[in-house]
Amino acid sequence: MLDQFRFVLFGSVLAGLSAAAQEVAEIPAPVEDTVQRLIVAGSTDDVGLTFTEDLTTRIGPRLAGSEAEARARDWAAAELKALGFDSVTIEPFTIPYWNRIEESASVVSPAPQPLTITALGGSTSTSEGGITAELVRFSNMAELNAASRELVEGKIVFIDEKMTRTQDGSGYGMAVRKRRNCATATIDKGGLACLIRSVGTQTARFPHTGMMARGEAEGAGPAAALSPPDADQLTRLMSWQPVTVNLNIQVETSPNAPSGNVIAEITGRETPDEKILIGCHLDSWDLGTGAIDDGAGCGIVVGAAKLIMELEEAPRRTIQVVLYGSEEVGLLGGHAYAKRHAADLSNIVLAAESDFGADRIWRFDTRFSEAALPYARAIQEALQPLGIAPGNNEAGGGPDISMLARSGVPVVTPQQNGWDYFDLHHTPDDTFDKIDPADFRQNVSTYAAFAYLAAEMNWSFRKDETALSSE
Amino acid sequence: MLDQFRFVLFGSVLAGLSAAAQEVAEIPAPVEDTVQRLIVAGSTDDVGLTFTEDLTTRIGPRLAGSEAEARARDWAAAELKALGFDSVTIEPFTIPYWNRIEESASVVSPAPQPLTITALGGSTSTSEGGITAELVRFSNMAELNAASRELVEGKIVFIDEKMTRTQDGSGYGMAVRKRRNCATATIDKGGLACLIRSVGTQTARFPHTGMMARGEAEGAGPAAALSPPDADQLTRLMSWQPVTVNLNIQVETSPNAPSGNVIAEITGRETPDEKILIGCHLDSWDLGTGAIDDGAGCGIVVGAAKLIMELEEAPRRTIQVVLYGSEEVGLLGGHAYAKRHAADLSNIVLAAESDFGADRIWRFDTRFSEAALPYARAIQEALQPLGIAPGNNEAGGGPDISMLARSGVPVVTPQQNGWDYFDLHHTPDDTFDKIDPADFRQNVSTYAAFAYLAAEMNWSFRKDETALSSE
Repeated sequence: MLDQFRFVLFGSVLAGLSAAAQEVAEIPAPVEDTVQRLIVAGSTDDVGLTFTEDLTTRIGPRLAGSEAEARARDWAAAELKALGFDSVTIEPFTIPYWNRIEESASVVSPAPQPLTITALGGSTSTSEGGITAELVRFSNMAELNAASRELVEGKIVFIDEKMTRTQDGSGYGMAVRKRRNCATATIDKGGLACLIRSVGTQTARFPHTGMMARGEAEGAGPAAALSPPDADQLTRLMSWQPVTVNLNIQVETSPNAPSGNVIAEITGRETPDEKILIGCHLDSWDLGTGAIDDGAGCGIVVGAAKLIMELEEAPRRTIQVVLYGSEEVGLLGGHAYAKRHAADLSNIVLAAESDFGADRIWRFDTRFSEAALPYARAIQEALQPLGIAPGNNEAGGGPDISMLARSGVPVVTPQQNGWDYFDLHHTPDDTFDKIDPADFRQNVSTYAAFAYLAAEMNWSFRKDETALSSE
Repeated sequence: MLDQFRFVLFGSVLAGLSAAAQEVAEIPAPVEDTVQRLIVAGSTDDVGLTFTEDLTTRIGPRLAGSEAEARARDWAAAELKALGFDSVTIEPFTIPYWNRIEESASVVSPAPQPLTITALGGSTSTSEGGITAELVRFSNMAELNAASRELVEGKIVFIDEKMTRTQDGSGYGMAVRKRRNCATATIDKGGLACLIRSVGTQTARFPHTGMMARGEAEGAGPAAALSPPDADQLTRLMSWQPVTVNLNIQVETSPNAPSGNVIAEITGRETPDEKILIGCHLDSWDLGTGAIDDGAGCGIVVGAAKLIMELEEAPRRTIQVVLYGSEEVGLLGGHAYAKRHAADLSNIVLAAESDFGADRIWRFDTRFSEAALPYARAIQEALQPLGIAPGNNEAGGGPDISMLARSGVPVVTPQQNGWDYFDLHHTPDDTFDKIDPADFRQNVSTYAAFAYLAAEMNWSFRKDETALSSE
């Protein structure tokens, strides 16, 4: 759709644009030399990796709106000051808080046994001691949507839809629908609660949490995710006999809990108002210690910024590191940032967020104006020593900067290998040991290289205003 | 030690024995033909795999002495009758029962966060709400043994010893010492409880349960295993600041709970009193569904026996399938069998137990008299189409038949690849999906082939009595 739209819009100048797309902007030798020095320096990064290790150890899980997330903000701000950033600020905001207090499930009949589950973010509580009811199974969300009220009424819905493992994580979009909508669809049809096969790709017995779409009132209903082996077990049991399950979820909520974004800057030496934003999110789900999601991302951007800070002189433009709060519960830090800085968004020259683990970057995507494609090509050529392929011009940028991208801020996506990401994502197994230091450091090198280039060169990546407002 | 002893004992006939060791007993063509047909039939086994699938699904976890283990016995007996065994019996016995009711742990300071643990079998309860105390860390069991009372008193001991991953599972013997003895050593030095890094080889966030050695009284003390990432986390935290942990374990015990062995036979057509025993254990730990430990073993021996049952005629000797109860809590089914059948042990021509998962068999070990080595060689040659190498003559046989081996019963060990076994062993992740059907079926073929050969041929594998009594 977008490609087609562009074709119409720029049809008259297509020949010229194609030529531009092949063109590569020139990088002066001293700048190119600095880029390559940053890439080498990243390969032995210790600052970034230690930041991730300490965040996931000395804070641990950092649920949005929790006391632990507050500790993480204070710790991170102190750490960034100690690292020598020119300014470090916390921008507070409040969020609706949700926390699990108790969760369990078991097969009551025909073969009593415990089930491994975890409540979805936004789930309501069941009655005390839980709901006991017969299961009704659907192969996917569409089947539930098409089901009659008679089939669902008084039952616990079980959606057994599997997620596809892909290099780019594209299986997530489809799989996540059942997590978002299962409870609403269940309650609408008179069902009592919803159990989904986890949105995940592994066979290990971990459930994956994550937000559901909230209903119009406080919450849509009780909903939980089963580990993949437990979903298989229920399917086998149901092919033998009708299955009755007990599901007990107790949660606490509060309408106004404190959260915040932590922002640190290296002031640009010539045009400090122009900013290169590199971000991550500081909050995590509560089950693991938030290492690949997203302690790694924070370590990568902090490590990259620190390498730039150690150059002989600051780059022309400002490097802004943003550790967003409350990403997991609706990109609330991203929205708070976009709202607070709405008047200054045109100052953001380029933005990127690292929020897809710590595996190697294999492709570098951009979202630039057609006229700026020679700059994209130049950055991609500079990154070739890292084994990174040139990508497309349809980058999303990352969750917390998606609203910036929609407002016209140019973004890039250094695409990480996502083959294993959804094995760990939102599980208790998202812990620091899962990070490969060599892969992590390739990310640090990448972020240092492109952020420096964008900050040092006098390049503009913006689309013209007509194109932006039409999208 | 054993090899040296043999040298002395048989020194005078060594030349002759060496020749015997190279000799290969002849297998008549029709028998060899049947063996190879069994091997082919095993490659499409469905009976064995379905037995394992149903046991782990329709019963699920089968803790020794529990109601679930009783259901497993009844289910298995009915299933074996339906499969057409000539006789199926349950031999009951009673055991001291232990069950976890509640277990949790968390870091209290300096960085509050939950820990993933599981109580060890035989652990005592803590006070209600748990014990809160400072940790003292030891790199291994020897360090704890050497520690002063002052260091341990009033503290929770943490032993961070890692287990070595090996093909043959030999890392287990060393690693399991801390599980058996940590609580006793801790309590002896005035410590309050013991946390061990799990006896396991994976990095996934699963704790491994398993029996500890019981103290002289009811239990040695409270003890639990940490998942490997949690052990790493504590080590990192302790390198930063002293760490205080809360450990809450509540257990129930009873002195006389019902357990039992399930025994099924294919009666031999000529010498029915002579028996080939192929076994497994029916109980499992409670965390997973006991698939690789040891639902797989039961499916393998049942599947193998069923293939033999389907031959045109029964073999000369009886095939006895034994599904032992209460293996996990001290080989109690094995001891009960050995005691009950003490007078008839000389009738057991050969015994083997499958209790090391469902991975491929790569080597075939025996424990035969020197004079019977040509038979070992003949069996090993018959198994070559399965990709199995000839092994040594020091087979252990398996846990529940280890006491038979000590009483002089010849045993074999079809050695399975154990590289991944301790990733899953005694964890919540021991579930049916972890079994590879092709590997499982190679096991079925192997058991069918050697059990049939030993039952059909007029071979004796026994050591002479002098040698036995000296060992």
